[in-house]
Amino acid sequence: MTDNRKPTLYLFPVPMGDSPVADVLPDLNIRLIRSVRHFVVENTRSARRFLKACDRSIDIDSLSIVELNEHTRPEEVAAMIAPMEQGHDIGVISEAGCPAVADPGADLVAVAQRRGFNVVPLVGPSSIIMSLMASGFNGQSFAFIGYLPIEENKRNARLKEIEQRIRRERQTQIFIETPYRNHRLIEELCRRLPDDFLLCVASDISCSRQSIVTRRIADWKKADYNYDKIPTIFLLYS
Amino acid sequence: MTDNRKPTLYLFPVPMGDSPVADVLPDLNIRLIRSVRHFVVENTRSARRFLKACDRSIDIDSLSIVELNEHTRPEEVAAMIAPMEQGHDIGVISEAGCPAVADPGADLVAVAQRRGFNVVPLVGPSSIIMSLMASGFNGQSFAFIGYLPIEENKRNARLKEIEQRIRRERQTQIFIETPYRNHRLIEELCRRLPDDFLLCVASDISCSRQSIVTRRIADWKKADYNYDKIPTIFLLYS
Repeated sequence: MTDNRKPTLYLFPVPMGDSPVADVLPDLNIRLIRSVRHFVVENTRSARRFLKACDRSIDIDSLSIVELNEHTRPEEVAAMIAPMEQGHDIGVISEAGCPAVADPGADLVAVAQRRGFNVVPLVGPSSIIMSLMASGFNGQSFAFIGYLPIEENKRNARLKEIEQRIRRERQTQIFIETPYRNHRLIEELCRRLPDDFLLCVASDISCSRQSIVTRRIADWKKADYNYDKIPTIFLLYS
Repeated sequence: MTDNRKPTLYLFPVPMGDSPVADVLPDLNIRLIRSVRHFVVENTRSARRFLKACDRSIDIDSLSIVELNEHTRPEEVAAMIAPMEQGHDIGVISEAGCPAVADPGADLVAVAQRRGFNVVPLVGPSSIIMSLMASGFNGQSFAFIGYLPIEENKRNARLKEIEQRIRRERQTQIFIETPYRNHRLIEELCRRLPDDFLLCVASDISCSRQSIVTRRIADWKKADYNYDKIPTIFLLYS
């Protein structure tokens, strides 16, 4: 059980794209964020913008804000926990979506867990779960596998494996692509996968241009679409 | 892109356990739920309670509420889309958490996708994503696999496979258990997995007794804990 005498690492999700705070975050997040004085953030500028969007009255210059991103060395991550050693809570803020799922915040969570502090995740937009909900695919078994490999042999092997896990394990397979390559990926999936497989393309999740469409591969071959440079997540099933 | 001229299937998450609506759902969900007149729900009683918790002024008796659960036949699911054919939006409400991820709502989503309607997932609590955030484990690659098989040989084979996917693919493995068997599962994982593997036990997510603890298997062997009959999700990594 959460120990109220111990400091807490709060994980604050951030709206993706242009969605307003009240559309994608519960009121609890705003109430808690007002009480936190120490933040570890992926990007200082976007974190400051997010804090202002939560509550314009937050005095951002009085807060301690430390950056944790792909340039941070492991020994620096461990040092970021110092405010908790002194009894303070820390808030983690990523660039967009849920912190510590696919960003360096996870390293700080691991440190907090090793030291026995409370770790409290807050509710927010997750393109993985939201696209899965809207796909109509199996949610009893699913895998998120990040990006497909770029090198051709490895990429083809991964696509074979995806096909097998769908057939043998009935496991929904979820992955992402760099947005300017979205169309090339859809064309590749159309070439390589059986016509009766189902592809869900979920783009601009929770934002103004949101579109989540499931079609058979055979129907994607004939479909009109434009996902160019729009953040998109791909789900496969059969 | 979402076509505003077409009816929409809204997927409304529901608080898990005792958490208040404003702690786990954004204001947008409440605004949208007020505009929907046709609901497909997993359980009528809990859906009515949820609607009242969203807004006490909702006149529930004036709404159309249809049940979709494990007893529903496939041909009945297809018929539930009828209000959309007549131009109305439908709201899907599960018992707890995100609808259509691990419940029969997914079948209705599949029908709506086949007919080309809009499907819009709303933000809400997901024990899978929230436990992953707080585990400190790899979120670039993870799989949710539901329940482990009960039959002993199959169960041991699955545990071997879990171990392999963690070692070879660095894929976080996530699963659930019937709450009264939580302790037996932890003891089993302690017996069967290497001492240096990491187990995160996340219980009562987003609720008042929430506890999310990551420890090495060696440390779980010595730990005191009580998860008896508390909804809990398990994550493994190394």
